[in-house]
Parts: sequence; structure tokens; C-alpha cells
Amino acid sequence: MLRRVNIAVIGTGRMGSVHTRNLVRSIPEAKVVAVCDIRLEVAQAVADELGIQSVVKDYHDLLSDKNIEAILIATTTNTHAFIMQDVALAGKHIFCEKPLALDLATIDDALAVVERAGVKLQVGFNRRFDKSFRRVHDLVASGDIGQPCILRITSRDPEPPPMDYVRASGGIYLDMTIHDFDMARFQLGEIEEVYATGNVLVAPEIGKAGDVDTTVVTLKFANGAIGVIDNSRRAVYGYDQRLEVFCSNGVAMADNETQDTVVKAGKDGYHTAPLPHFFMNRYAPCYIDEVREFIACVRDDKPTPTNGKDGRMAVVLGYAALKACRENRPVKLSEIG
Amino acid sequence: MLRRVNIAVIGTGRMGSVHTRNLVRSIPEAKVVAVCDIRLEVAQAVADELGIQSVVKDYHDLLSDKNIEAILIATTTNTHAFIMQDVALAGKHIFCEKPLALDLATIDDALAVVERAGVKLQVGFNRRFDKSFRRVHDLVASGDIGQPCILRITSRDPEPPPMDYVRASGGIYLDMTIHDFDMARFQLGEIEEVYATGNVLVAPEIGKAGDVDTTVVTLKFANGAIGVIDNSRRAVYGYDQRLEVFCSNGVAMADNETQDTVVKAGKDGYHTAPLPHFFMNRYAPCYIDEVREFIACVRDDKPTPTNGKDGRMAVVLGYAALKACRENRPVKLSEIG
Amino acid sequence: MLRRVNIAVIGTGRMGSVHTRNLVRSIPEAKVVAVCDIRLEVAQAVADELGIQSVVKDYHDLLSDKNIEAILIATTTNTHAFIMQDVALAGKHIFCEKPLALDLATIDDALAVVERAGVKLQVGFNRRFDKSFRRVHDLVASGDIGQPCILRITSRDPEPPPMDYVRASGGIYLDMTIHDFDMARFQLGEIEEVYATGNVLVAPEIGKAGDVDTTVVTLKFANGAIGVIDNSRRAVYGYDQRLEVFCSNGVAMADNETQDTVVKAGKDGYHTAPLPHFFMNRYAPCYIDEVREFIACVRDDKPTPTNGKDGRMAVVLGYAALKACRENRPVKLSEIG
Amino acid sequence: MLRRVNIAVIGTGRMGSVHTRNLVRSIPEAKVVAVCDIRLEVAQAVADELGIQSVVKDYHDLLSDKNIEAILIATTTNTHAFIMQDVALAGKHIFCEKPLALDLATIDDALAVVERAGVKLQVGFNRRFDKSFRRVHDLVASGDIGQPCILRITSRDPEPPPMDYVRASGGIYLDMTIHDFDMARFQLGEIEEVYATGNVLVAPEIGKAGDVDTTVVTLKFANGAIGVIDNSRRAVYGYDQRLEVFCSNGVAMADNETQDTVVKAGKDGYHTAPLPHFFMNRYAPCYIDEVREFIACVRDDKPTPTNGKDGRMAVVLGYAALKACRENRPVKLSEIG
Repeated sequence: MLRRVNIAVIGTGRMGSVHTRNLVRSIPEAKVVAVCDIRLEVAQAVADELGIQSVVKDYHDLLSDKNIEAILIATTTNTHAFIMQDVALAGKHIFCEKPLALDLATIDDALAVVERAGVKLQVGFNRRFDKSFRRVHDLVASGDIGQPCILRITSRDPEPPPMDYVRASGGIYLDMTIHDFDMARFQLGEIEEVYATGNVLVAPEIGKAGDVDTTVVTLKFANGAIGVIDNSRRAVYGYDQRLEVFCSNGVAMADNETQDTVVKAGKDGYHTAPLPHFFMNRYAPCYIDEVREFIACVRDDKPTPTNGKDGRMAVVLGYAALKACRENRPVKLSEIG
Repeated sequence: MLRRVNIAVIGTGRMGSVHTRNLVRSIPEAKVVAVCDIRLEVAQAVADELGIQSVVKDYHDLLSDKNIEAILIATTTNTHAFIMQDVALAGKHIFCEKPLALDLATIDDALAVVERAGVKLQVGFNRRFDKSFRRVHDLVASGDIGQPCILRITSRDPEPPPMDYVRASGGIYLDMTIHDFDMARFQLGEIEEVYATGNVLVAPEIGKAGDVDTTVVTLKFANGAIGVIDNSRRAVYGYDQRLEVFCSNGVAMADNETQDTVVKAGKDGYHTAPLPHFFMNRYAPCYIDEVREFIACVRDDKPTPTNGKDGRMAVVLGYAALKACRENRPVKLSEIG
Repeated sequence: MLRRVNIAVIGTGRMGSVHTRNLVRSIPEAKVVAVCDIRLEVAQAVADELGIQSVVKDYHDLLSDKNIEAILIATTTNTHAFIMQDVALAGKHIFCEKPLALDLATIDDALAVVERAGVKLQVGFNRRFDKSFRRVHDLVASGDIGQPCILRITSRDPEPPPMDYVRASGGIYLDMTIHDFDMARFQLGEIEEVYATGNVLVAPEIGKAGDVDTTVVTLKFANGAIGVIDNSRRAVYGYDQRLEVFCSNGVAMADNETQDTVVKAGKDGYHTAPLPHFFMNRYAPCYIDEVREFIACVRDDKPTPTNGKDGRMAVVLGYAALKACRENRPVKLSEIG
Repeated sequence: MLRRVNIAVIGTGRMGSVHTRNLVRSIPEAKVVAVCDIRLEVAQAVADELGIQSVVKDYHDLLSDKNIEAILIATTTNTHAFIMQDVALAGKHIFCEKPLALDLATIDDALAVVERAGVKLQVGFNRRFDKSFRRVHDLVASGDIGQPCILRITSRDPEPPPMDYVRASGGIYLDMTIHDFDMARFQLGEIEEVYATGNVLVAPEIGKAGDVDTTVVTLKFANGAIGVIDNSRRAVYGYDQRLEVFCSNGVAMADNETQDTVVKAGKDGYHTAPLPHFFMNRYAPCYIDEVREFIACVRDDKPTPTNGKDGRMAVVLGYAALKACRENRPVKLSEIG
């Protein structure tokens, strides 16, 4: 019979509760043996809803439990690194939400501990598990459409996040473009240089906070291909997520998923619904699939699909883009570290 | 706190196990207290997978359990009617898979018992819960695009079912078109007359069994609109399910859902994936939504969205189409009973 | 050097002036040597615009002109047959607008004269020259997608014609569906039986004139395939012209041509323009291509792509559908003559 | 009656013969009174085909003809500037193919002469007349979708031109991107800074000639918007021409025009035709419309829609991009001149 992986979840807020629900309802290969949140009542509510036995307030209480093989970390960003280190030292495998941290020194320290501990680490780059982006990847990787030449990512949020969030986020490149950097690396491999230009065009309050709300980023890949990412904090027609990889012998494109397939036509033409507005709906199946894959990696002792290096490189690219935008010049990744 | 409806499932084969899984994983408003199958080991496996306590072989064992408020019947068609009657007499609400039965006398007897017992009955016309078909319905019902004039349904299976199934199914009109008849009634209301023509074009063995594999059915609605359904047992490009309602002031159309949004282009043009082949994938969310709605109707004492009359009318339409095809003439529903 | 075919045009109203303009501007293989209209000033205006030398009021004046090899007839329907006969007796090849006439006896007499005279006759079924419908035809004819099973034609006008026109037109089946009957024969060959049902749903004045404005017609083809045509006199979103041929090994579909490729998206979703409203715009290239092909047939002595039989069969089908609708029963073509 | 503008065409090669044919067949407001080509037999063939009376070898022979109001220049690029000056001095209005010249000094000299002469000048940026790009422009200009934020142009040729052509063309930025620069200015107005990165990925021989075959160009507009153009010399699926203008309150997109509307589906999915391969087909209506507009400007004494400044700015942008690519840094237009 199927061996189930015993897992605990630290942090049961928005993202952590989604992961816990997915684990309980959709991933029979795992068993959630405990949930933890510094707001105990939040963890308790999730446990009640899902029939989970053990609820703790302090994550250290989980570390000595021999029964627990893996831990999913979905706490606030500034706690990821030190929790990750403690969990690694306790010899448990780790699934950690992105970003690993907002500064590279912290990331490097944590990754060193993880490596020495020899535990598995998967970083939550959920978009890699989108069925369409994945099929584009597979088409390109197959070589059937030749060598990659141009990668285009359009990634626009339906509306700006609250300003508290913006201020703590590290800015557009570390908060929003970071997903696209990882997608770019997933599709075409390593990037060597970044140019970015940005402006404040849709959300003046973001400008006041010293950030931009609109940006176009150019990437030079190690394989010679050129990439371009465009981001906006406000696409009124919904959460716009498109990808195109143009190759020497063809092209592969992933368009937006739609709310439904309905077309209505009248005197004034044809109409279809706006795009779904909420990223959790758009990528709902990815959240399940990324964790299912993590569980499989733990159970079958396989390398995780996104590892510490992936987590680190996305942050490096974020800093390179930020520097490029501020200094208005192309920045090599080697300048960042 | 949320009151949960205690439900049992009779018949845990293909369809019944899907319903049970959905109830346990996705419908927290319900609690599956027992599963039943004449193949006890089949019921046991489902119970083990989902942590259900009680497993019985004989459905009569469920009837005296005061704890059970509702029963979902997903047995073979020829047992629906008598189980439904027993369940009704036991005072429990019923969700029953379609068709209710293959002859009208049996259906009428069963519905009379259900009515006298005063229990709720929902018939499993899952497609009414498809988000796109539902939005077409709402657009048309809103009157925004005027009065309905022409309804078009294309409904083609990816491949013929096994011949054993075909022989027991009552033929294409009672097995396949029956869904489209219900969809037609859902969209535009009552139908008064049917014309059908069919042929054997893709599956000679179906012809040998006295059935057709391809058909076009014309419908006259009470409101004056005209409908047309086309069916085939074999669409090699996948499970083709489209709907169009043309009205005096516009049109609403629901196209097929696709496997993903990827377009690949090369020297020979643009390519997208075939349609999903399996009806359970195509309509997966509908199976959840129809049962969730049933549970809500039980809990909140509301009328069910599809009732005994709906179940009966779909069969009446099936017989009318069969007669129309055999006699090559339009048949009024009043001729059927 | 290229030999040019000398042609004259009889009838320079709406359709005839389009043909004349096309001949002069886009078909260098032809030379328009004369135009004729009983309203001489109408013919004169066309001649002035296009630099045509000879203008006559009475078409008999053209018949003795040895210089003229071919004549295009674009007069009113009730004059087609007798002009055609006179032109045939004069030994000139004929391009005649559809329908040849509104009664079969007249058609048969005229075709007999044409046949005895040994001149070529092409009937103006322009839609056969649409690039998309033609490619569907070629895909189906190639056998690559198997045997035809179901043909679907949607053909809806943007708005009803003037009532004077409706009254003289012979009704929806002889005026509007006639194009679809020819398209059906072009795609899948001969038809043996027709069923039709119609209603008055968008234009009450058409009902008062004894006609219907909405119809669904079912066709049985000699090859076993089943066809269905749906027509409406009023599609507010434009001139809706779609075709689908479903085969045992695939499907070929031609969707509407759009005004442009622009998509606009905003808070309320995605929008595209309504369809072009005027049939002459939709089929503009077909009018050129059908006449160019006629000229090539004359010059190279080839059989015309649409002949007298095609013209006759479309009318037979129109009468069969009319009878089917009135008597509410399937009608065999052999009942019509 | 309509006054016709007398025009002569200098250069009747590929582009010039298309213009002449369009003038004769589709622009009745103009009369082609003479054609000129240094290869007299080439001009004579065009004149014979179209019934043009006067044919000359030396364009100076046209200049003293008082009858000629306007001249269309479609010679090789290196002759545009001096012919333009002679024509301007002769007091005739000018339609000149792009680019005006490959160096700015020559352009400036010629434009100064044109301005002093007070004749009209239209530069052949045909894509501005594409119905879809024009509608995007109108949607954006209307303000209905807010302020422009991001402009995206994808412009990829089906295959590299002959190497002789490449070597004389001034490179990808002056030959290919030049159209996109003009489109960008047409859509969003003046550009202040350009960054470009390019590579040799599909045509090694282009690399040997010192040029790139793939490029991504970033634009900073005076209004704060950001633009991005991607070009490739080889898109095997056809001539790929797309435009998107993302605004603060919506987005407008123009997709590729397709060869036809046919979709074929089979076991392996859905297929549509590759894009048209030849730019003259893709933009055929634009060639007519731009010249028709020029004729209207001459006749009604209106400013031309694309003038000398437009012609100059596209070349300035080409040099800025070339410099940006070579020096791998953003280049301000003020650096070019």
C-alpha cells in the first residue's frame, strides 16, 4: 500500500491554509500531522476544518517530532530563512514559499545550512506547474521548433496590492517580476545580463513609495536568446499572464485562461468575460501540483524541481533589474553576486 | 457552526466513487456516513481511501438508519427506480443518476411514490452545472439578447462505448441525446415536437445492434423557437460539446473547453491540442456542483434544480426521437405519453 | 500575348455594376465591349465610369455582334430565362445570376435551349469561390479526414430585405436557403430528402406575407451524410456565415471573416467588432473569382464550375424545403421533379 | 464631376508597379499620365498592361510637363533624395517610398528643398493604413482606455532577404525595425530614448555581414510610456505582425490576419494555416489606401498623413538603435541629431 509522507505546515495564513487544504483533500500521498501558527487560533481553525490532530504555536515544538519527515513553510518572508535553517538542522525536508529572503547574504547562509544538512529543499515557484507554461517548456526543450531566439512574458496584476504590502515587498522587481525571472529561467535557462526601465503610470502612491508600477525588462540568456518581460500593477481587464517562446523553427505561446468559453454577440459586436482577477484562482491547480511533486520527491528520494539555487537566482535577477532601472544601463548578474 | 447533511451512497462504481470522493473532499457541508455496493469489496476500497466508517452490501441496511438524511443512487440504470422507491418510503431525500429508468411506466410509478413520500429528488443532469452553459442560460433568461429563435447543440463522443454498454443503453437517443434534450429544456423550456434522422457512419457494429451512430434532431419549442442537436459516437479530435442560442437581439455561444491554452506554430501552420477525451474530465466541476447544490437544497429545504419531471421529460424526448427516426416523420411529445 | 475574351453585360444594376467593375479592373483576361440596361442612363453611367465604348438599351442589339463571345446576365430574376435562351441561340457563352428562374418548367425549357446551342453556362453561385469554404471542400474531398457524416451551415442575414423584395423573392427557401443548398451540394454532393421547419420570430411583416423568417432544414445526402442548415433574416451582430463538415476522421470548419483583428479589453471584458453587415463586402473576392473562372473556361474551353444542373437543383431543393415546411414532413427530391 | 489628379510614377520595379496598378485600377481620383524607369522596357511593360500613354527613361523629362501635378517615387533608396529635390524644384507634390535616405545629412538637405518649394511630401509608411493598426490607434487616441503605458510590437519576417539586399539595406534597424519605429510613433507619439540588444540566431550569413537577425528594442516615449519591439528575420510560420497598446484603463491589440478562417481538427488536435508569407499580400490594401489619401491631400490641399519629419525620425530611431546595440547602452535621440 501507498506510503504516506508525514508533513507539518508552519504558517497557516492565506497561502499556508491553501497548501494545508490541498494536502488534506487532494494529495493522499501525504498526511498532515500538525499545523503551526504564531496566531494559534488561526492554526486551530484550519485544523478543525480539516480534521488535523496536532496544533502548535511554536514551530520548535515540531522539530523534535521524529514522525515528521517534511515541513512546509508559508510564514512571512522575513522568517523564511531562520525557520528553514532550524528545520534543516532537525533533518526534515523543506518546501518553502518564495522569496527565500530579501537579501542575498541571508539566503546564502540558509542555503549553506540546508546543503550541509543534506535535506531536500523546494521553493514555491508554482507557475512552473501551470499546464500551459509547462507544455511550452516541453515543446521548446524537445527541440522540435529549433533553438530559442526570443522569449516574451506579459505579467500584469489586476490591481496594485495594499501600500503596506508594497513597502515591505522589496519593490516590483523582487515582488512581481521575480515570478517572471523564474519562468524565464525555467523556459530558457541561465540569464547573464538584465536591462530594465520603469515608470509610475497607474498608481501614484507606488511612485511616492519610491517604486515603479510599470516596467519592461530585457534579458540576455547564456544561450544567446533575448527575453523581454513586461509588468504592470494594474490591468483592469484581469490577471494577464502570457508567455511566448519564439524559436528558429517555430513558436510556442501560452495565452490567458478564461473564466468560461462564452461569447455573446450583439449590435455592438462580440464580447467575452474579463480574465479571472485573483492569482490564487488562476494558478489553483499549480499549488496542488507543486506540493504533490514535493511529496513525491521526498517519498522517492528524487531531486526537487525547484531548488535553493532557483530561489536565489530569482532574487539575484530582481536586484539586477532594480540596479539596471536605477542606473539606466544593462547590468550583468556577476555584478550582483 | 455549519450543519452537515448526513448522506449515504448506493453504488460505488465509476460514477458513485466520483460522487463519494467529491462529497468527502470538496463538499464540507455533507458527511458521508456510509457507502453501499453489492460488490462489498468495491465499497470497502472507496471507504478505505476516504476514511468512511460504515460499509454495507445491501442497501436496505441503510434505510432504517435515522441518522441518514439523504441518499445518492449511482447504481446501474435498471435498479434506479426500485431503489428510489424504497429510499423514498424510508423518508430520505434522493439524488439519483440519470436516466431514472428506460421505460416510462416504471418512471411514473417511482415518481408517484417519491411524490407521496414528500422527499426531495434531484436527477443527475450534471451539464446544467457547467459554468459556460449556465452563463448562456442566464444571458438568454435575462432577455438582454431578445427572444430565443434557434438553439444549436453539438454533442459528439470521442469514441463509441463498448458494445455491451450500447446494447443495454436504450440506443443513442436514450443514452446520448438524452443529455442534450435536458440541456435544450434547461435553455429554452418545453419542447412540443421532435424530428430525427440518423445513420450508421462511423461504427458498423452499432448498426448491427439496430442503433445509429450519427443523428440530427430537430426540436420545436413551445415558445416558437427551433432547436437542432447533432450527435456522433466518434469525434476523433475529442469530446465535442458546444452550445449556441441565437436570439432576436443577439447570440450566446459556449465553445469547447481546451486542454490548455498553448498554440504551437511551424512551417505547416498553427496547432492546438485535441479536446479532452473523457467526459468525466470535461464535466468534473459539474459533478461537484450538482451534488453541492443538492446538499444545499436538503439543508435549506429548497426545491431541487432538476426534479423528477426533468428526468421523465428527457426520457419522453428520447422515445419521441427514436420513433421519429424509425418512422421518418415529426413526432409530437403527446404521442409518447 | 494574352487573348482577351470579349464580353458584354446585360443588366447594370447593383449586381451587374459590381461584375462590370470587377471585369474592367481586376480581370485583364476579359474585355467588356458593351453594357446594356433597359434604363439606358444606368448603363451609361457605368460605361462612363469604366471607359466602356458601347452602351445599349435593348439586349437584342448585342446578339448579332460577332465580336462578343460571352454575355453576363445580371437582370431581374424573371427575365433570366428568356434572355438566356436568346443569348444561347446567338451562340454566346453565358454567365447568369441565380436563380435561373422561380419555376422549374421555365428553367427546364431554358436549359434545353442552352444545351442544344452547345454554349457554356455558369450560374452565379459565388460562395463556392470563398477561399475558406473552398478549402473546407478540398480538405473533405481529399479524404484526409475520412467520410462525411454531418454538414452544418449557419447562414443568417443582418436584417430583413425590403418587403417588396421579400414578396417577389419566392420566400426564404428560394431566396436565402438556396445559397446554402448549393453550398451543401458543393461540399457533399447530391441530396435525396429534405425536412424543414420554420417560424416567424424576428419580422412579423414577413409572416403577414406568408413567409417565415427563421428556419432549420435537415438534409439527407446520397452518400448517407446528414446536413442541417439554419437561417434567420435578422442577426443583429452582422452577416453570419459559417460552415462545418464533420467527418469520420476529423472535422473542417470555416468561421466568419471579421472586420479587423482588433481586440479591446476593459473592466467589462474583451470586445471585438460586429461582423460586416453587407453580403457584397463579405463575398467581394468571390464575385471576382467566379467571373475570372468563367472567362478562363471560355478561353480554354473547359466545363464551367457551376452549370445549369446546379442552378436547377438549388431551385428543386428550395421547393422541396417549402413543401416540407408547409406539410411538416420530410420530402424526397423525386417528389418535386 | 470629380477632378482627377495627374500623377507620374518614377521607378516601376516591384513596388512602383504595384503603386501604378493600384492608381489605375483602384484610385479613380487619380490619372497616371506617365511612367518612368531607367530600364525603359520595364516601364513600357507596365504602361502596356495598364494602358498608360507616356513612357520615359529619364525622369527629368517629366519635370517640365505642366500637366503633371504629383509624382510617386519608387526608385532604389539611394536615388530618393536627389529625385525628390528635383521634383520639388519643379513644383510637383511628392509621394516617396521609405526610407528617404540612409544618412541624415542627405535627408535634411532634401527636406529643406522640399520645404522651400512648398510642395507636399508623403512618405510611404504603408502600415499606418492597416485597418487594424489604425483602429488600435483610434481606440487609444479616444482616451476610452486611459493613458498609454506599454506598447508591444512583434514584427518578424518569414525569411531573410537576399544577402545583396541585406548589405545595401543599412542593417536590421534601418531596414526592418524602421517600420516599427514609425508604427510606435504613430501610436504613441515622440520617442526620447532607445535601448537595443541583438544577436545572430537564425541566419549566420547575416552575422558575417556584420548585422544581427534577431533584436529586442526598448523605447521610452515622451509621454512616459514604455515600448518594446521584437524582430526576427525568420519566422517559419509566416509574416508575423502584431501590435498591443496597454493602457491604464484597458488594452487594444491587433493580431495577425490569417489566410482563411478554416480550422481542421483530427486525432492530433486543431490546425490552422500558416500566416501569409509575403508582405505585399499582408499589406495590399494599405498600399492602395496610402496613395488614395495622398491623392486626396493633393486635390483638397490637406497636410499629408506622413510627412518629411516622419521619414526623418524613423531613420534617426534606426541609428539610435544601431548605436544602442553596438554600445550596449540606452541612447537618447538627441545623441543622433
